[in-house]
Amino acid sequence: MENNHEKCLELAKRIYDLDTNVYQLSGSSLGRTFSGDKDTHISNLATLIYTRPQGHLLRSEIALIGNMARTIRNKTERSRMMTEYNEILKEIEQIPASFGSVDIVDEQLATLNISNLHREKSPDDHLIICIGRTHGSAGTDIGFALADALKINYYDVEIFNQVLDRLEAEKDSISDRENFATKLDQVLPDTHVKRRISDFSRYHGLPKKDAVFFNQSDLIRDMAKKEDFIVMGRCADVILTNNRIPHISIFITAPFHQRVRRMMEVNHLEFKEACKLLKKLDRQHERYYNFYTGRKWGDAVNYDLCINSACYGIKESVELIERMIDKYPTSH
Amino acid sequence: MENNHEKCLELAKRIYDLDTNVYQLSGSSLGRTFSGDKDTHISNLATLIYTRPQGHLLRSEIALIGNMARTIRNKTERSRMMTEYNEILKEIEQIPASFGSVDIVDEQLATLNISNLHREKSPDDHLIICIGRTHGSAGTDIGFALADALKINYYDVEIFNQVLDRLEAEKDSISDRENFATKLDQVLPDTHVKRRISDFSRYHGLPKKDAVFFNQSDLIRDMAKKEDFIVMGRCADVILTNNRIPHISIFITAPFHQRVRRMMEVNHLEFKEACKLLKKLDRQHERYYNFYTGRKWGDAVNYDLCINSACYGIKESVELIERMIDKYPTSH
Repeated sequence: MENNHEKCLELAKRIYDLDTNVYQLSGSSLGRTFSGDKDTHISNLATLIYTRPQGHLLRSEIALIGNMARTIRNKTERSRMMTEYNEILKEIEQIPASFGSVDIVDEQLATLNISNLHREKSPDDHLIICIGRTHGSAGTDIGFALADALKINYYDVEIFNQVLDRLEAEKDSISDRENFATKLDQVLPDTHVKRRISDFSRYHGLPKKDAVFFNQSDLIRDMAKKEDFIVMGRCADVILTNNRIPHISIFITAPFHQRVRRMMEVNHLEFKEACKLLKKLDRQHERYYNFYTGRKWGDAVNYDLCINSACYGIKESVELIERMIDKYPTSH
Repeated sequence: MENNHEKCLELAKRIYDLDTNVYQLSGSSLGRTFSGDKDTHISNLATLIYTRPQGHLLRSEIALIGNMARTIRNKTERSRMMTEYNEILKEIEQIPASFGSVDIVDEQLATLNISNLHREKSPDDHLIICIGRTHGSAGTDIGFALADALKINYYDVEIFNQVLDRLEAEKDSISDRENFATKLDQVLPDTHVKRRISDFSRYHGLPKKDAVFFNQSDLIRDMAKKEDFIVMGRCADVILTNNRIPHISIFITAPFHQRVRRMMEVNHLEFKEACKLLKKLDRQHERYYNFYTGRKWGDAVNYDLCINSACYGIKESVELIERMIDKYPTSH
């Protein structure tokens, strides 16, 4: 825009005037952001708006005026100042590349994030909550209680192992593939079963650990197309992201000493044993996640959210997640 | 309880029967958790309930039955099975040391956590939101927009520096301490100003960096007794925890490549420059936080919550935090 510079100068004047007024009304010289020569200040401010509208400095200058304006005791005057403050803020937002205008959003992640309530929804979407956790953080207790509260299915490693063991057992005992398919149809009546059978065979020859992982991945992907559920671990967040299936990924952890205390109580362990076991389990989790995803386990950049369960406890963690995904406890 | 073992046996029978019924109704042999000899299974299950009620295995066994029960197509039968399932769950919850009964909560942290809505509130509580962030994650943009949405004050490093510089300047120009106190009273009319003045002098002699930190800390502590606000960084979370002042501590971050992309755009930098600058700023932040708190910056165990802003963007991050602290956008 040609008149952009002029516009900035006008805004700078308004900011300067607002500051002066707020200064007089709040009776504080420290509230005054600009002291000294008026023209120099306006010119500097205009340059700041023009050249670095997205910078922290401009925002801080303005925030300081707003903070002081809120302390004005006379209600009418305060309201008048806040109105002008808000109008100036809006004007600044109109400037191309103003602060807040360069977003941090990763469109792909945001599109897949079901706790981002403004994303475009599809009728095929399901409520899928992936929970990673450090051992002893009560992550599985939170996941199970959340599934119960939301009345959706809960899957953890033991359940997956049972399901896969049985699929394997059934498969071995049935020579006729179609027959096996029918059996599978009964288990998970709504899934793309036929394809999964060929997948299920596809991984033969791989090390058992890898075959289990890939079979689990396929199971998670297929389930995610058909039902709401909570899944504990299994790198489900990455599997779903790679398959472009919406979900929310949460990591639950707690300070080491709290986890140790809880492990001692739950498993009747001595302090030293609990520390040792916890470190070993953390290492195992870490290796598993890092190996199959190439990401760093427990690093906040790899999840939508991380919750410190020691700051909430089991019950409040469940309610916090319910609020985040906009499913409120019935008591609300 | 003397009849505890008997109670467990009875529960084991009910679980076994529920499993059998769900098996028949869902028409899937894979849904059946227990196959083989009935008495052995019931006995094993009773032992599991008796000895390890808090263990994952029991929960997984039960969850699997619940998952299958939800697939029963006949609505009346499904509802009947789910009722029995829920009753069994309740019975298990009654068992001392049942799963979920050993909480992870840290009473002190939970008491100070204002996003824990069930904590006991005090009329002195203020809405104080401490936001730590990695550079380029739009953390400050989120903080500023959140302050604007909640109509509360916003403080960041520039504002603190300005306030402290002016306090220092005023102090130097005023020989009479009482006079200075009056001035200060005007700035922050509601704070325990007199004490702060002596604090303000107390740190003379310390390295400037430390004096600034301690003065900031005192300012944050005093403000926190008097007003609602958002504070960016400054180790405010730890300062408030140490002073037992309720707040919520949030860490905002985003994947490195996203932060680089944003830094390039905001600051008109080349890729290499942005990477270098970001790494340098991260190191500075880390050193500052670790030095003054003895904790690890950005580690999820040191905050109530961590948010990956790339999964939300600025606007949705603000709304997510509003939901978490139970302050809903007016549009809701």
